[in-house]
Amino acid sequence: MSLLVMKFGGTSVATLDRIRRAAKRVGREVANGHEVIVIVSAMSGKTNELVGWVGETSPFYDAREYDAVVSSGENVTAGLMALTLQEMEIPARSWQGWQVPLRTTGAHGAARITEIPTEAMRGRFDDGMKVAVVAGFQGISAEGRITTLGRGGSDTTAVAFAAAFDAIRCDIYTDVDGVYTTDPRITSKARKLDRIAFEEMLELASLGAKVLQTRSVELAMRYKVKLRVLSSFDEYDENAGTLVCEEDEIMESNVVAGVAYSRDEAKITLLGVADRPGIAAGIFGPLAEAGVNVDMIVQNISEQGETDMTFSCPVDQVARADRAMQQAREAGSIGFSELVADTEVAKVSVVGIGMRSHAGVAARMFQSLRDEGINIKVITTSEIKISVLIDRKYMELAVQALHDTFELEKAG
Amino acid sequence: MSLLVMKFGGTSVATLDRIRRAAKRVGREVANGHEVIVIVSAMSGKTNELVGWVGETSPFYDAREYDAVVSSGENVTAGLMALTLQEMEIPARSWQGWQVPLRTTGAHGAARITEIPTEAMRGRFDDGMKVAVVAGFQGISAEGRITTLGRGGSDTTAVAFAAAFDAIRCDIYTDVDGVYTTDPRITSKARKLDRIAFEEMLELASLGAKVLQTRSVELAMRYKVKLRVLSSFDEYDENAGTLVCEEDEIMESNVVAGVAYSRDEAKITLLGVADRPGIAAGIFGPLAEAGVNVDMIVQNISEQGETDMTFSCPVDQVARADRAMQQAREAGSIGFSELVADTEVAKVSVVGIGMRSHAGVAARMFQSLRDEGINIKVITTSEIKISVLIDRKYMELAVQALHDTFELEKAG
Repeated sequence: MSLLVMKFGGTSVATLDRIRRAAKRVGREVANGHEVIVIVSAMSGKTNELVGWVGETSPFYDAREYDAVVSSGENVTAGLMALTLQEMEIPARSWQGWQVPLRTTGAHGAARITEIPTEAMRGRFDDGMKVAVVAGFQGISAEGRITTLGRGGSDTTAVAFAAAFDAIRCDIYTDVDGVYTTDPRITSKARKLDRIAFEEMLELASLGAKVLQTRSVELAMRYKVKLRVLSSFDEYDENAGTLVCEEDEIMESNVVAGVAYSRDEAKITLLGVADRPGIAAGIFGPLAEAGVNVDMIVQNISEQGETDMTFSCPVDQVARADRAMQQAREAGSIGFSELVADTEVAKVSVVGIGMRSHAGVAARMFQSLRDEGINIKVITTSEIKISVLIDRKYMELAVQALHDTFELEKAG
Repeated sequence: MSLLVMKFGGTSVATLDRIRRAAKRVGREVANGHEVIVIVSAMSGKTNELVGWVGETSPFYDAREYDAVVSSGENVTAGLMALTLQEMEIPARSWQGWQVPLRTTGAHGAARITEIPTEAMRGRFDDGMKVAVVAGFQGISAEGRITTLGRGGSDTTAVAFAAAFDAIRCDIYTDVDGVYTTDPRITSKARKLDRIAFEEMLELASLGAKVLQTRSVELAMRYKVKLRVLSSFDEYDENAGTLVCEEDEIMESNVVAGVAYSRDEAKITLLGVADRPGIAAGIFGPLAEAGVNVDMIVQNISEQGETDMTFSCPVDQVARADRAMQQAREAGSIGFSELVADTEVAKVSVVGIGMRSHAGVAARMFQSLRDEGINIKVITTSEIKISVLIDRKYMELAVQALHDTFELEKAG
């Protein structure tokens, strides 16, 4: 018998009615002959409420207690989902993370899954259970404390179960109907993709397309779990949503799959940096220690033993980066004349596995931006991605222009 | 080092501010040199919300899923309390029922505690932990499912921990400042008792004085756990609240300790019952099977081979009792001519261990009711209690009259 994993996010289980609606979808898959593992998030808003209480109680909280508190929302949904399925006469029961037990590292608040034993649950399926409902986002550490996987961790839970149980597919039900060529709020020409490669999805996820948590895509890629993103609010359709799959399962595709953006970026430039070996480590070591997520890095050509070093980071980390750099300078580990921060920038990227075999994508991108009069501040590239930093006020314009340039409104 | 158990009910932890207030009381006991096990309920209203969701989802719910859902409220409070104590620099951690593990029977929704292992928690105290915060009301079955102990189960959790850890006392913090001679809403003469014997408290608890769950008092009596009920809202005072203790710890006392009442009673009379051996079993067997909680029973003197049988039960169980009796008659297991139900009655009781050695309490009670013109419908007595069933409209009057008659406004 084939096993399917279905994950329902917070908005898909926000009310008892929505839980019933989700349960009906589960029921249809059971009727289709599948055994199903359902992963549920907390009802929409619940986790934020709990996180708020923890923060208000204790600004520098014990992460173990944080996890014990915030994991409770998923437990409620899991029980209610099991009850709803039972009402539909579908044999179901709920599992909390520690009951599976879904074993994790002890990194509270951001734990990584280390093991999902399958025998006990497998035995229940063999005894006639049709649906196992699992509270997402949580696990248990070697010390027997409750852990959580970090925000969006339920996606990761779902993919991990799909891998452990060798599921035919992992369906992620959410409040959007799939992965788009870009954000439909920015251009109405944005088109839903039927399929997207893992690598592309990874770049899009990490670039700010908030459909799937990056870690879940990484995990799916590693274990070759077919991942489908679809809306729990649309009428059901065999081909609904977007399938995230291996490259060779995508028959034909555009050179560029999508245009992603990240609005809240900052560009920091260190002027007059002494250009000597080890200077990069001297800069980025302290930044990493200070918890600054450095993204793009550009080093200008050295002139007379001095160079400028530019990097980007989230705009809310600028103060932290500034402090780290001033301290490093005072400590004498680096030297620079001035730190200049530009907090009004955004990042726009084009992503596509087709770039590997198609030259000229970068040229077309730069041409398109030039035609719109948009100045490029920083460029970085990878095998399947080209990102540019531009003035934030041009972000929407850039996304629209690039979407047109690469004709993303047309299927590949 | 002496260990104290402190239990905080839902109203005492209803908000973050109230949790802080409760934590301060815990902090004071730590400063006094105690190790403390804190038992917490869910924030006021949370359990009702969860119970409502379960009922709405599934009218005939799977009690295992019910328990998984409704137990989550206590987990939130336990984590928040531990964090609050940590903020006060008191070494504390939270335990959920399965982490202790507090082992129970598999009777979901009304499980009984079978074991509380103390070694692990004891070890943490020995390592310097000052406060163990335990989520009340919940445990784990032999099958590894979450169980709950039934409404008010956190009191039972607290007493069980006090027994297991040989605590010097179990303080139950609630929204009333102790046990009263009767409900202060009925007579302003009601007086708080400084001490009350376990047996008296048991009778008062089961008669509807909702201060402590009956089971917790039974457990405290069996294991000789000193139980103190006090308000979490009053200023602290060494002698605050009411101490529930053994009879010989009460120096002097009134003959009658208190007047209890139960408003929603019904009286059912079966007329023309054939008076033959086994008829009581023929009646009360089917009632028990139907889940009717029969309280008082009176059999009238037999006339010409027929008798009348009268019993009382909660008013909302009358329809169930009627159905059970009609079915038993149709099945031929009992015979009666008519079932008459009086749904407008209330029970009023006087309770006191002094009755054992003082004659005439019943006579004074009946006299007092007669002086008020209140007709007694049914009487039952135990060693330390006399209960009467009367018209509900006279209930307050009866309580006031009995309170005056036994001079309960004066300390014994």
